[in-house]
Amino acid sequence: MPQVNAYGTQGAAQPLAPLQIARRELEVNDVAVDIAFCGVCHTDIHQTRNEWGNSMYPMVPGHEIVGKVTAVGSKVKRFKAGDKVGVGCLVDSCRECEDCKDGLEQFCCKPVFTYNSFEKDGKTLVQGGYSTKIVVHQDFILRIPDNLSLDKAAPLLCAGITTYSPLRHWKTGPGKRVAVLGLGGLGHMAVKLGHAMKAEITVLTRTLNKIDDAKRLGADHVYATNDPKTFEKLSRYFDLIINTVSVKLDWGKYLEMLKRDGSMVLLGVPSDAPQLPASPLIMARRSLAGSLIGGIKETQEMLDFCGKHNIASDIELIPITKINEAYERILKSDVKYRFVIDIATLK
Amino acid sequence: MPQVNAYGTQGAAQPLAPLQIARRELEVNDVAVDIAFCGVCHTDIHQTRNEWGNSMYPMVPGHEIVGKVTAVGSKVKRFKAGDKVGVGCLVDSCRECEDCKDGLEQFCCKPVFTYNSFEKDGKTLVQGGYSTKIVVHQDFILRIPDNLSLDKAAPLLCAGITTYSPLRHWKTGPGKRVAVLGLGGLGHMAVKLGHAMKAEITVLTRTLNKIDDAKRLGADHVYATNDPKTFEKLSRYFDLIINTVSVKLDWGKYLEMLKRDGSMVLLGVPSDAPQLPASPLIMARRSLAGSLIGGIKETQEMLDFCGKHNIASDIELIPITKINEAYERILKSDVKYRFVIDIATLK
Repeated sequence: MPQVNAYGTQGAAQPLAPLQIARRELEVNDVAVDIAFCGVCHTDIHQTRNEWGNSMYPMVPGHEIVGKVTAVGSKVKRFKAGDKVGVGCLVDSCRECEDCKDGLEQFCCKPVFTYNSFEKDGKTLVQGGYSTKIVVHQDFILRIPDNLSLDKAAPLLCAGITTYSPLRHWKTGPGKRVAVLGLGGLGHMAVKLGHAMKAEITVLTRTLNKIDDAKRLGADHVYATNDPKTFEKLSRYFDLIINTVSVKLDWGKYLEMLKRDGSMVLLGVPSDAPQLPASPLIMARRSLAGSLIGGIKETQEMLDFCGKHNIASDIELIPITKINEAYERILKSDVKYRFVIDIATLK
Repeated sequence: MPQVNAYGTQGAAQPLAPLQIARRELEVNDVAVDIAFCGVCHTDIHQTRNEWGNSMYPMVPGHEIVGKVTAVGSKVKRFKAGDKVGVGCLVDSCRECEDCKDGLEQFCCKPVFTYNSFEKDGKTLVQGGYSTKIVVHQDFILRIPDNLSLDKAAPLLCAGITTYSPLRHWKTGPGKRVAVLGLGGLGHMAVKLGHAMKAEITVLTRTLNKIDDAKRLGADHVYATNDPKTFEKLSRYFDLIINTVSVKLDWGKYLEMLKRDGSMVLLGVPSDAPQLPASPLIMARRSLAGSLIGGIKETQEMLDFCGKHNIASDIELIPITKINEAYERILKSDVKYRFVIDIATLK
């Protein structure tokens, strides 16, 4: 089995450091990818530090992977060496359950996530994109549009699809009023994508510090959530709230900003579950919902949409040696808006 | 102004007792109704006892009103003396807001509820159906199908529409798996209506004591929520859960019983808001929603549906003198499944 250079950790309390991992030999349906860039998702921190209690080590994180195809298996016709491709949060699924059949592999009963997950054999731990090469079944390889630069495209594989999918599912388009709660890695993508879908976009953020940035990204309005007047003024205003904030909030207050039949969609999990009053739901038939990344078909659709509208992430490119520092900065929300690792620094 | 006999209270701490109230003179668009029966809703207890902190006295409760037309105003063409009619939770609305225009007067910005509410003049307190007569604008008068007996039809005006509306809105029909959580006044109507809509109906109730009754009402399955195996067995099973229970529950546990894209709809407000974990929403794109009675058009549709399918409430008919005792029994869930007051006992 080919050994490749990677950066990962042997345990929850240890910083990330160089290590070597094995990638499988190319099988008939596989695509081998030379990784160029990998985005840094907050999930990488949760998982390397075992904050969700299900971490397996050694662990190489990273699920916002872009690069170029170096080789393909004999049954692969859609990709060839040199193609610009991406790998997101999933590298396989059961392919048999209702969710897989519906093209919603993210909800599969036995998904194979890109790292901290077993292959379908139930015993081989898969490893993520903080590494130089990866081998993935062709069905989970995405095509990156030619006009997008690879480094800025990397975060589309998680932050992009995580916001695109609920925007589409809840029918964002002209005439719709969409709020984006939180302007971080997910939020800034939601603004760009929702704006390109021609909805009216309002950014709800703690203070007005980011007002210029939000407008540059495509927001029509920006309101501060530390100002109680925001909640009065925007009462019953929105069709949809994309909630990218995973800290504990008074969800009832935000639900009151929705029109009748409006939905607030949660993308993050607060570690301490908020109390939810029923009245804001009942009094205007509102919904509180959740959404998780997206299926492979929809991820390709999102990438094509981004190509067409020339949308990518705002990033800060870092060498792999800065990864531990980057984690600390993410925890302080000190990044505009996504760290991306230049994998050339790992070679 | 005509004085009529009624039963109501002068304050939160006082039992209901006889009193007289004024009804307005018949206006051109009004329908005068001789009340035959009035259902007893848990809301009547909350409101007479000021449990929601917004009660105004004197208060005559009751919003499940049926009777016969005795007179109509000069502009009323759809109703005539002798017609069997009903009045539900609303007697007027602003008629100008988006919700009114959409026929969803229950969400109107200035609704006039049947009691504990001001008329559109902003100063005349309206009074409910524990009384011998009522005068209501023709637009808020419902027609009761001839084949339904009036006493059993009374609870349709609140319990019926409160369950019919979400069943319809969330597209109950053949092939859909619907759970009804709680088998009381609302729950027993949800079972009858959902069964008539040809969905597979599962009753979720604390113990299996009511199993025979639930099946007689139309349930296909009955499971006890005090048995942990229920939650394992029914994981990812339902398209829709109609939650009629207004005590604090672990909503996350119930959400796990929904399939991908399923919804749990709350009809009651727990006084102590439950904590809601985000994961059950996110991991299968589920929704937690709420629903409130229904609009006038949909209430008539529900009554016609009940006429067609010969559906009404299971009731216990009581004289008005038993009303305080009935309230105590409701608080102990000791009623199958709705008390209805025989208003003849008040005349």
